[in-house]
Amino acid sequence: MKQLEDKIRDEGQALSEHVLKVDAFLNHQVDPVLMQAIGREFADRFRDAGIDRIVTLESSGIAPAMMTALEMNIPFVFARKRKSLTLQDDLVEADVYSFTKQETNRISLSRRFVQPGERVLVIDDFLANGEAALGLTQLVESAGAVVAGVGIVIEKSFQPGRDKLLERGYQVESLARIAKLEAGEISFVEVVR
Amino acid sequence: MKQLEDKIRDEGQALSEHVLKVDAFLNHQVDPVLMQAIGREFADRFRDAGIDRIVTLESSGIAPAMMTALEMNIPFVFARKRKSLTLQDDLVEADVYSFTKQETNRISLSRRFVQPGERVLVIDDFLANGEAALGLTQLVESAGAVVAGVGIVIEKSFQPGRDKLLERGYQVESLARIAKLEAGEISFVEVVR
Repeated sequence: MKQLEDKIRDEGQALSEHVLKVDAFLNHQVDPVLMQAIGREFADRFRDAGIDRIVTLESSGIAPAMMTALEMNIPFVFARKRKSLTLQDDLVEADVYSFTKQETNRISLSRRFVQPGERVLVIDDFLANGEAALGLTQLVESAGAVVAGVGIVIEKSFQPGRDKLLERGYQVESLARIAKLEAGEISFVEVVR
Repeated sequence: MKQLEDKIRDEGQALSEHVLKVDAFLNHQVDPVLMQAIGREFADRFRDAGIDRIVTLESSGIAPAMMTALEMNIPFVFARKRKSLTLQDDLVEADVYSFTKQETNRISLSRRFVQPGERVLVIDDFLANGEAALGLTQLVESAGAVVAGVGIVIEKSFQPGRDKLLERGYQVESLARIAKLEAGEISFVEVVR
């Protein structure tokens, strides 16, 4: 998605070979017009996948999931990293290890909002080692629903997350694919669509 | 806002005199069409307030802030409850006490995304004791910006948050105002607009 790649080039910062800072438009400040375009792009790519519902993870998945859900006219649910006072019953849970934070979070979702047999689109802001995306697919499948696709805003293609998802047979659509990060330099995977 | 009150009546659950469960459309599953209407309503109510930017708090503030920002064609920023790997420099911070969780969270925002003199609309999903909303106004003012209004999706009007905000001179717009909760029963404040 050219508009997103341009934004990453203009406002993203490669802090190291592994860390891309995009807090200017994705995970702290959010550009709503870009996010609307992201929602339209996901809706377009999964138009024929028969999606009933979107599942994402708080917090940075919420804005892209919101715009995709609006475009597809279906509800979305955001999995929680911490249990809330009013979210305690009848949960599906998965453990997600964060390599960057070196800690495990238990993520959870209420069964009330993912029905058996539904076709679910999983959306997240970043794909690196695949831990979060795999945790989300695990929640969906534990609830008896079907993962009908995985939509990622920014994929770090030099890390193994994409391959892990493809090995499990999921359709993976990443709107920007980073081939390489070097301090101050960002290269994209050339994609012929 | 009648559409929101109807939704709360139909799908909200009063779990006790203090706890309203709205995870069917606001803070776990999200109804994107309702959220778009919420964004339009906030945009309408603050149309003449000269807003430059929206500030909200992760996670449940993100969807309403997203839709309001899109409608007003301005960026939004979500304050973090935990520091991220890429959000560590040049922060403004505030401590927010949660009565329900009985713990204090330090919330933070990068100064890069709230400029001195800007007029900021603070948005949050719930207003009860006012701790979160006051913490957000503190972040905005610590950054040298002006709180030009506070927009709340659901206000528990029997708790002191609204009065604390009004005492500080802020324009407070709550789209649904709960007068009273009893197990199984939800009453609204009658508002003549």
